This record gives sequence, structure tokens and C-alpha cells, in this order.
Amino acid sequence: MISFANDYSEGAHTRVLELMMKSNLEQNAGYGLDAHSSRAKQYIRRHLEREDVEIHFIPAGTQTNLLVISSFLRPHQCVIAADTGHVNVHETGAIEATGHKVLTIAGKDGKLTPELIKQLLEEHTDEHMVQPKMVYLSDSTELGTIYNKTELSAIRKCCQDHDLLLFLDGARLGSALTCKKNDLSLKDLPELVDVFYIGGTKNGALLGEALVIVKEELKEDFRYLIKQRGAMMAKGFVLGMQFEALFEDKLFFELAAHANNMAEKIADAFERLGYPFYGPWCSNQIFPILPNSLIKRLAKDFIFQTQAKVDDSHTAVRFVTSWATAESNVDALITALRAEE
Amino acid sequence: MISFANDYSEGAHTRVLELMMKSNLEQNAGYGLDAHSSRAKQYIRRHLEREDVEIHFIPAGTQTNLLVISSFLRPHQCVIAADTGHVNVHETGAIEATGHKVLTIAGKDGKLTPELIKQLLEEHTDEHMVQPKMVYLSDSTELGTIYNKTELSAIRKCCQDHDLLLFLDGARLGSALTCKKNDLSLKDLPELVDVFYIGGTKNGALLGEALVIVKEELKEDFRYLIKQRGAMMAKGFVLGMQFEALFEDKLFFELAAHANNMAEKIADAFERLGYPFYGPWCSNQIFPILPNSLIKRLAKDFIFQTQAKVDDSHTAVRFVTSWATAESNVDALITALRAEE
Amino acid sequence: MISFANDYSEGAHTRVLELMMKSNLEQNAGYGLDAHSSRAKQYIRRHLEREDVEIHFIPAGTQTNLLVISSFLRPHQCVIAADTGHVNVHETGAIEATGHKVLTIAGKDGKLTPELIKQLLEEHTDEHMVQPKMVYLSDSTELGTIYNKTELSAIRKCCQDHDLLLFLDGARLGSALTCKKNDLSLKDLPELVDVFYIGGTKNGALLGEALVIVKEELKEDFRYLIKQRGAMMAKGFVLGMQFEALFEDKLFFELAAHANNMAEKIADAFERLGYPFYGPWCSNQIFPILPNSLIKRLAKDFIFQTQAKVDDSHTAVRFVTSWATAESNVDALITALRAEE
Amino acid sequence: MISFANDYSEGAHTRVLELMMKSNLEQNAGYGLDAHSSRAKQYIRRHLEREDVEIHFIPAGTQTNLLVISSFLRPHQCVIAADTGHVNVHETGAIEATGHKVLTIAGKDGKLTPELIKQLLEEHTDEHMVQPKMVYLSDSTELGTIYNKTELSAIRKCCQDHDLLLFLDGARLGSALTCKKNDLSLKDLPELVDVFYIGGTKNGALLGEALVIVKEELKEDFRYLIKQRGAMMAKGFVLGMQFEALFEDKLFFELAAHANNMAEKIADAFERLGYPFYGPWCSNQIFPILPNSLIKRLAKDFIFQTQAKVDDSHTAVRFVTSWATAESNVDALITALRAEE
Repeated sequence: MISFANDYSEGAHTRVLELMMKSNLEQNAGYGLDAHSSRAKQYIRRHLEREDVEIHFIPAGTQTNLLVISSFLRPHQCVIAADTGHVNVHETGAIEATGHKVLTIAGKDGKLTPELIKQLLEEHTDEHMVQPKMVYLSDSTELGTIYNKTELSAIRKCCQDHDLLLFLDGARLGSALTCKKNDLSLKDLPELVDVFYIGGTKNGALLGEALVIVKEELKEDFRYLIKQRGAMMAKGFVLGMQFEALFEDKLFFELAAHANNMAEKIADAFERLGYPFYGPWCSNQIFPILPNSLIKRLAKDFIFQTQAKVDDSHTAVRFVTSWATAESNVDALITALRAEE
Repeated sequence: MISFANDYSEGAHTRVLELMMKSNLEQNAGYGLDAHSSRAKQYIRRHLEREDVEIHFIPAGTQTNLLVISSFLRPHQCVIAADTGHVNVHETGAIEATGHKVLTIAGKDGKLTPELIKQLLEEHTDEHMVQPKMVYLSDSTELGTIYNKTELSAIRKCCQDHDLLLFLDGARLGSALTCKKNDLSLKDLPELVDVFYIGGTKNGALLGEALVIVKEELKEDFRYLIKQRGAMMAKGFVLGMQFEALFEDKLFFELAAHANNMAEKIADAFERLGYPFYGPWCSNQIFPILPNSLIKRLAKDFIFQTQAKVDDSHTAVRFVTSWATAESNVDALITALRAEE
Repeated sequence: MISFANDYSEGAHTRVLELMMKSNLEQNAGYGLDAHSSRAKQYIRRHLEREDVEIHFIPAGTQTNLLVISSFLRPHQCVIAADTGHVNVHETGAIEATGHKVLTIAGKDGKLTPELIKQLLEEHTDEHMVQPKMVYLSDSTELGTIYNKTELSAIRKCCQDHDLLLFLDGARLGSALTCKKNDLSLKDLPELVDVFYIGGTKNGALLGEALVIVKEELKEDFRYLIKQRGAMMAKGFVLGMQFEALFEDKLFFELAAHANNMAEKIADAFERLGYPFYGPWCSNQIFPILPNSLIKRLAKDFIFQTQAKVDDSHTAVRFVTSWATAESNVDALITALRAEE
Repeated sequence: MISFANDYSEGAHTRVLELMMKSNLEQNAGYGLDAHSSRAKQYIRRHLEREDVEIHFIPAGTQTNLLVISSFLRPHQCVIAADTGHVNVHETGAIEATGHKVLTIAGKDGKLTPELIKQLLEEHTDEHMVQPKMVYLSDSTELGTIYNKTELSAIRKCCQDHDLLLFLDGARLGSALTCKKNDLSLKDLPELVDVFYIGGTKNGALLGEALVIVKEELKEDFRYLIKQRGAMMAKGFVLGMQFEALFEDKLFFELAAHANNMAEKIADAFERLGYPFYGPWCSNQIFPILPNSLIKRLAKDFIFQTQAKVDDSHTAVRFVTSWATAESNVDALITALRAEE
């Protein structure tokens, strides 16, 4: 079986593993106060061209989301998200478990817009309702779409106008920033959002998300909050090493670009065969709409997920590529597809 | 500088790393539903001689503690702990952040007894006070002491008599089970406690604690709770591999025994030089009481932590060894000590 | 100004006040363990024709909702509600503040149906999503509509089939049970739901909701939970007296019937004048759709709330009557309406 | 039976009831935005000689405590209290249920001192431990003792020096401020604490605590927080009327002075008969240490609570008086005591 089920099936890129092997018996300080974490932060700051941001490495994405949202909101405040947002659908109520409502509205291809945000603001005007105080975006989104610079800037302005914090979930930020339609660069982000993270787990690391806190007022005491939510690893240097290897030069971007290239090749094949898509495809997740009969046959040799029933005989499915996707696997899929014609 | 600061300064044992390297490009199922995790659970069940226990791998200790306590208590119920308990002192209020009080009483050398537990039960009798429902122990304790079989059995009986759940934090269980004074074996634990964990982070793993749920009623839906608290790693197989390597044979116990041997050598040296100890020493943490002047001189070459001020000129300090402690480092410390005479 | 803004503008019915005056200097036991509370519970059980239900008096509605939902769900479980549900919209995230998601779906005239509930169940199937475990209904609903016996029985069956708890918010239960379209009686409720409450605040009491726990497994330790959420009044006898007066005979139902009669008179007037309604009217809240110009004129003499913009020149507004609504005020409104023609 | 069990056995003072009767059929705005609440706030501000404080009426004490503590702390912060503090012992974990640790230290006669506070601060220095951010005092304390101006000023200074918020629980503030040893006046409080409340429930009101927020930064959005915790009564005017009647002139203080006078009379009797006290007596709670045989005989005619076992044959008990305590009841107790000689 060849899996296109997700982008976290394999371990870590060789250069990450090599660094871990080489440094294995060093005696490092605990809890992220080690030299590897320091270097990794330095490398990321260099890519961001910002010395003033605060960076923390968090083991996993849901943990990062719940940590950010619960740390920066007062009890009566809520976070706005698209209905498809990971924090709304796929975190088993992790945000609510910290005490905060996720206030949702139907997104456009998984994305929020200033108009959608304003609609929720207009509906939430007094103390009998939660107070919207943060906007949650993901880039790329759960539907594989991305925000361009114009869109993100417009949301930024809307947030500033209404005193809302802007938080960008970058679990798949590498793929977003390296896909062809993208016009954002990593260093644009600190200008546009208050807090975001750069996903390592889905782009070459064993584990880890690099949380970047831009807004000054949000920095205070953040290590307390990491510890309290159980997200401070004793061997924090393991996290540091992941990002040290990924950001020492451009490895992070190269890996993401590979994932996108593999996805594009698959998407092209589906497109050429005339299959429609569930939404505009772009990054390392593609969602073709296939006849159920074809899905059944493909499922014998390939692993992929079902996204949504489209009609009685068609279903949108999800193919995901990653830094580790072998081109031979992509070719095998395409061959199988063509054989169906 | 040579560090005796803790037991999580180095990476992982070679056999863990080798397994990770070898398996790196396999395509594994996500979220802990992979073959490595399955094998690791099978190995641990074999060591426990119990097929019916449920095992989950959790990235870190505080996370495991908060997950266990918050999953098994109703909102008005609390957990009893010694005042020195990790959940009381060193988790930044992580337990309270999930809504539960940690009800404490001064322990004896870091340990609870049935008498201490009963004292708290007698004080908490109606609905104006929290309802004690769980007992939290650590073995070894935060003071390096251990529970023997008689002590643990007595607590077990007390918990059964009063309908209390018994939870054992085994972040340093390897060291406890392999130290000379110990008369418990790993397979005794499912007979004596309702839920416990086997610490990997401090005994040869990069990260990870193996949570063992014994009591049938506690097993339901636990994966939901792991996910909700942000403790379900996308690459759960990384956790699985740690325990696969440690428990395929006896590696876990060999590593812990090494740590204990190194600690014993250090303790012997302090003892021979006439220094008293803060409490009875036993496992891989020892707490000699030293003149402040000596502490100052040792601190030039060795890293260790301060535990408690004893009097104006003496302080209890903590030396910790681990699976990775080089005997040459221990010898260097002993040499330095003798040179002080 | 005459207010039709809500059903909690006035104090308490004379018979409630008289009982309070008469009993004022008695020495009562604290925290609801007094003779008035006992009698009130006995009276309510008599109306319910059920001796086995557990009854608690809670000061307010949001408090009752958060208490019920947080007491009976495990951390990963959520409550299903119509999108218009009070717990979703008008409680400032009170439910989420206790850690639980309110999972919503667009209701029909403010009501849930088995089909809507099943749709959410089908979408929530694994541990990456919250687990639906309770259904929240209100009767009458936030849109003034009611459940008939067939509808409620169907929801009951759906809940039983899917192991869901059924909770009915009866803040306006009196009005629901006494309106003309209703075919449920108070004593039907213990057969049909697991837990519900009978609203006193909006039907003749100074404050207080009578929470009725039917399902045996939900009764344990509930007084602990009341205390923990700050809902246990030291002078619990004040709450007891409210329900003692309302349920000693049929006062509760007579007051609600009056409110409905007054609402009906208003609704008839709007209907006769040809104004449409925002939804089918029934109980003590009616929602006519009026020209904005008329709203503006009426607002000079009458207080009422805006519900929703319908089009650029029309708005749905809310008129609410209560046990205390003077018929002369209703007549004044009708006169004003007719003068507009 | 005559009860000295507590100070919340009776209803409300006649003048409170009269105001409620007189105003019963007025149409008031809901949720505390009514004229009675406004007047009550104005009266309290006049007594405080401060126009700039924000006042909210909250139904009950535990609710007020949990609301204040959870609203003003960030998730990783904790509140310092004496071990005997109500928030620690008698609120069923209400504070922890909002996510915050109550950090305790053995008080002196139920009181904190700057030295005790500093001791906790010294022990809590890094992100592995909770961060103390608020000090909780009660005046009078749970042991009936009071803070004098020097003591409270010293704690104030300590809090300012260490950036701690100072919160005073005044459930029995009336009794504290009117007892003979007291040198504080109500108008001193805004100078000395950041937030406090004036207890109505235990001093003539049916229910209600008047929360006074002094510190500017704490005022924002507080009505949202009240609503979220279920503490915003629909008929908020009922709360307003309580304080309107109590503070229009000096009724509040007169009632408290009566309670103290009655307590003093009882204490004098015990003292003259040679019984020692559990702590220095002062306000409306007194704690004589009595032979168990005497306790048994008194318990036939009088209701009072047991505080603590002193030795095998003696127990400290608690006698509480209130605004409603009839002098004839006090005389009956004294007669019974003398008959014992």
C-alpha cells in the first residue's frame, strides 16, 4: 500500500536525524533553555528578518492552538474561526476545554474574510454574548487553500480596526509559502499577524511547531503557560534540533516545495483526466471529486481519506503529499489512474 | 562543566536511535495507531504479565498527570498528594487549570501513608468542601525515596476502603524498581494501583511516558481525552519506537540500574566523607547536605541543583544520575570531593 | 412607558411575598436544607406524580444550564443545541467556560428534531472530534415556540437510541405548558427527559429555577456541584419559599396562563391588522414583523426588543408578557396599534 | 431550639422587605440596569466617599470570590490565602474549578501577614511553579478575627512592592467594621485594597454582596464576566433593593453593631465562667473551648457548630450572632450556661 493519507507518515529528514545523532550525548540544559533551541531561534529570526519576536517550540499543533488561544483571551472572550477551522472541528473541543468559545461562520473555501468577521462582530454587541477578541486563520487552510497578501492584509486591517488579535495556524505554512499561487513570504508574517506558528511536524521534523509571538503585550510569562498546559518538554533540545536543522539554511522551504511539486503532479493528472475538484487546489493537499467506483478501486493500492459526499455516486477525497513523498509513489498513482480510463 | 542537574540532559539510548533511523521512511499510520506503538504495548504487557491493561504513550509527564487527573475525576472531586508532590509544586498549576484541587498534607520523606490519607478524608466530609477521590503517589518520589510493597499495599487497601482511585506517577519508575531497597516488580503494579505510568523521558527515551490504565471503568474514550489535551502526536510512532526499543527485552531496567549504580557511588563518597543526607537516599537522586563553601567550590566544575536551605551555613543539594551518566564523570566528582578534605 | 421587553420586570406574586413576610424571622437551616425547601419539593413532586425525582432550587437560569451541562458530561463530551439556543447565544460562553463545546445546527423555529440530532451524530464519529452526549432543548424556545408530545417523544427515542442525555431548559416552561397548542403536562416530563427545570424567575418568583433530576445516575453528589459553581445560597429558604407558594396549589399554572392570554390578545391584534410573524406564535413571546416606521412610533410609548432585520424596511420585534402584565397595558398597546391604521 | 449556628438563618430586615413590597409591581430594567441598583450604588459610593469605584451586586459569596479571582488572574497565576481561608476550605474547589490554584500558608488567627506572603513569594520563583498574583483576605476572618489599619496597610504595601492584587472578602465586613477593636472605616478600604465586597447576605439582606472594584484596570468588561459565571440575575433590581435599603442611611452598620453586641454578651458570659477561647474574639463569631459534656447538654436547646477538637475532653465550638439575633435568645443561652455552674 502507498499512503497519501497525510503528511506525517514518515519520521524526519536525514539532516534532522544526523544532527540528533551527532548531538545525542551532549549534556543540554532542560526545558528548552539549551544551545540548540537558541540557535534554532536565531536561524528563524534571521529568516523573519526580525530580532524582536519571541519564539517557543511546542511539541504539537493542537497543543499550540489551545495554548495560544487560552493564554491571550480573558475568560469571556472568544476566537473567530471559519467553520472548517481545525480548532472548531478536529481538536475534540480542546479550545472549549480551556474555557473559550470558538465562534464560527461558514468560510469561503476554508477562508475567512473581513466581511465574515464583521458579520460576527455585528451580532455580538453586549455582555449577554461572548466577546470576539481573536481571529484564527490557518495557512494553508484545512481545504488546502491559501491566503494571498491582499487577503491577509485586509484581514489584518479589519483586526486592527476592531481591536482583535490575529493568530495564524501555520501547521502547513511551509506548503502555503512555497506553492505557486503564493505571494507571501515568511518575513511578511510578523508584519501581518500578532502570533503564528511554523509547522515542523508536517514538514520534515519528528515533531514540533515554532510559535512566533510578535505582539509585545503577548510575550509576558509565556513559559509559565507552556509549562501549565503540559507542553514544556524536559528534553526541549530535541525540539530545538528539529528547527536548527530545518532553518540553518533553506531546508524547510525545499522540503515544502517538494511536497507541493508532488501534489501538483497528482492534481495535473486528475485534471487532465477531467475530474473536478472540491475547491481550488494549491498546496500539498488536493481534493478531487471522484466516482465512488474509482475510489473503491484506487483504495486497493493507495491510502487516502474521504472528505465529503458530493452526490450519490461521487465523493470528494483527499490526497496529501509531503517532504517524504517518493516521486515513484506519485507515478504509481498516476499510472493507476490512467489505467482506469 | 559536568552536569548532575537532572536525568534528561542527553538524547536517547543508541538502540532507540537505531530503531528510529532504521524505520524512518516507513509509512506509518498517524496518532499512535501504528505498528511500532502496537509492538511496544505488546512488549510492555508481556513485562506486566497482563493482557487486559490499556496502554497509551503520552509525550511528557506533566501532560500525563493532568490528563489522568482531569479525565477520571468529576468536577467537585480532588486528588490527594504529598505536599512535595510534583503535581502540587512543579507543574505551574496544571492540575488546577483543568479544574481540580490538589489536596495536600505534609508527607514523610515525600511519601503518603494511609494515616495521612485518612486524616484528609476525615476533614472533608460534606458538600462545602472538595471531595477526595484520587490519591497521587510518585515512585520514586520527588525526594528520591521509594515505596516498598508493604507500604504500597497498605495505601492500596486504604484506597479500596474509601473508594479512592490510586494513581502512581512513574516518571522515575525505572530507578525506583531497580534500586537496592526496592521489593516491588513492574508486574506488581497492576495489582496495586488503578493507573500508573512508566517514564521514558528520564530513562533512555527522547520523550514519552507509557500510561497504563488497569481499572476497567477508566478505559473508556481515553483517546478522546488525549486528543483534547493536545497530547496526541501526529507522529505517534515516534513515541511507540521509544518504548519498543526499551521494552523489547530488558533495556529499560538495565538503563535504570546503571543510573542507580552511579548514584550509589556518589552517595557512598559523600557518606564516607561524613556528610549527612536530606532524607534516606535510594534511587538516582541523592540529596547530601553540604557546607555552602563546598557547594560554591563544586559549582565551578559541576552542575547540580539546590534543594533546601538547612541552616545558615549548610544547604541540601541534589545530584541526579541517569542512563547516560558516564562513570568517568562520577569519578571526577568523587576526586573533586576528596580533594576538598 | 409600558414595557413588554421581557417577563422579569416585576418582583414576585403577592402570595410569594406574603409567605416571605410571614416566615421572615423564623430560624431556618442554611443552604437549602430548610423546611420551606422541603415542602416546595414535596409540592412539585406531587404535581409531577413522581416521588423518586431529585429537586434542587438554583438562583438563575444560566447558572442552572452551566451546572447541569458541566456536571453530567465528561471533559471530551459536548451538548447539542439549536443555533438559537440560549446556551449557544445568550450566556456569554458560560458553557464553554466550564470546558464543553455547544455543538449547534440550524433549528426549525428554534427547535431540534431527531433528524437534526442524527446529522450531528453522523459528523462526529471519532476521537478527533468532540463526542455528543447531551441534547439541550428549551420549552418554550427562544423563539416562543413549543414542543408537542409527539415531537418530544421522538427526540426522547433518538436520545435513547444513541445514548444521549436529554436536558430541557424550562425557564419558560409554565408558559409552554399552558399555551393553547400544548399537549404536554408537567407530569409527562419525567417520562420524557433526564433532567429539566421549572422556571420561577419568569413566572411569579423573585428568583429561582427548580431543577428536577430524573435519571438515577445523575443524582449523585449534586449538592457538591451546586456549591462549587457558586449556586448554593446561604439563605436557600428564600428559594424554597418561592416554589412553596407557586406549587402549593396551581398558582404557577394560573400565572403562566395569564401571561399567555395577554400575549394572545396582542398577537390577535397584530394578526387582525395583517402583520406577519417571524415564526408561529404560541406562548408568552410573540414576534410580529413590523414596518420600521411603525416600530419607531410605538417605541415612544412602549418598550420592546428587536429580534432580527427582515428587509430594509421591516424588522421582527419581540413583545413579551408575564404573570404581572396588566390587561390595561395590553389594551393601551392595542389602542395605539389601531390608531396607526 | 434556638440557633446560633450562623448569621443567615433569618430573612431580611423589615426595611428591606418594605422597600421590596412597595416597589414590587414597578417595571424595572433587567440584569441590574435598574433605578434601585443605581441608587444603591450611589448610596454606597457616598459612604465610601469615592465616586470612581465600580460597584456590582452579586447574589452570593462563593460566586463573588470565584468571579473576582478568575476574572483578574491569567491562567498561570494563583491567589494567596491563609490555610483557613474560605476560598481554600469551604468552597468545594470553586476557585480551582475556574483554573486557579489557591496557594496557602498557615495563617495567624486566620490572618495573613506580609512575612507570610513573602515566604510564599520566595518559594515561587520560576515558570515551573504557579505565579502568585493576588492576595485574598477576609475581614472579619473565618475565625472571627479582624485586620486593624496597621496590619492592612502593611499588607497593602507588600502587595504594591510585589505587584500583587489585593482582594478583601467582606462577607462579614459589617461585623468587622463595627466591632470594638476595629480602627478601619468603610471609606478606608478603597485606599487599601484593589477590590473588595460588602456582604449583604449575613447582614440584613435576603441575598447579595456588593462588589467594589477600585483599581481602574480591573473594571473593564466585568459585566461580561458576571454573566458568564451565571451571576447576573434577570431581576437584578432585587439585589439593588437590598443595598438601597441598607445603605440609604446607616442601617447596614446598625445591624452589624447589634450582632456584635449580642456576640459580646455571649463572650463575656463564657469569659466570666472561665472558659478559654480558640482565638482572640472580636466580631459576631465567637469560639469558646468547652468541655464535651457541656457541649452535649447545651446542644439539647441550642444549635451551634463544632470548630475543632482541642483535646480528648474539650472542643472549640462556634456561636454566631446576627442582625436578627433576639436578645432574649442570648439571655436564654447565658441562663443555661450559668445553670451549669
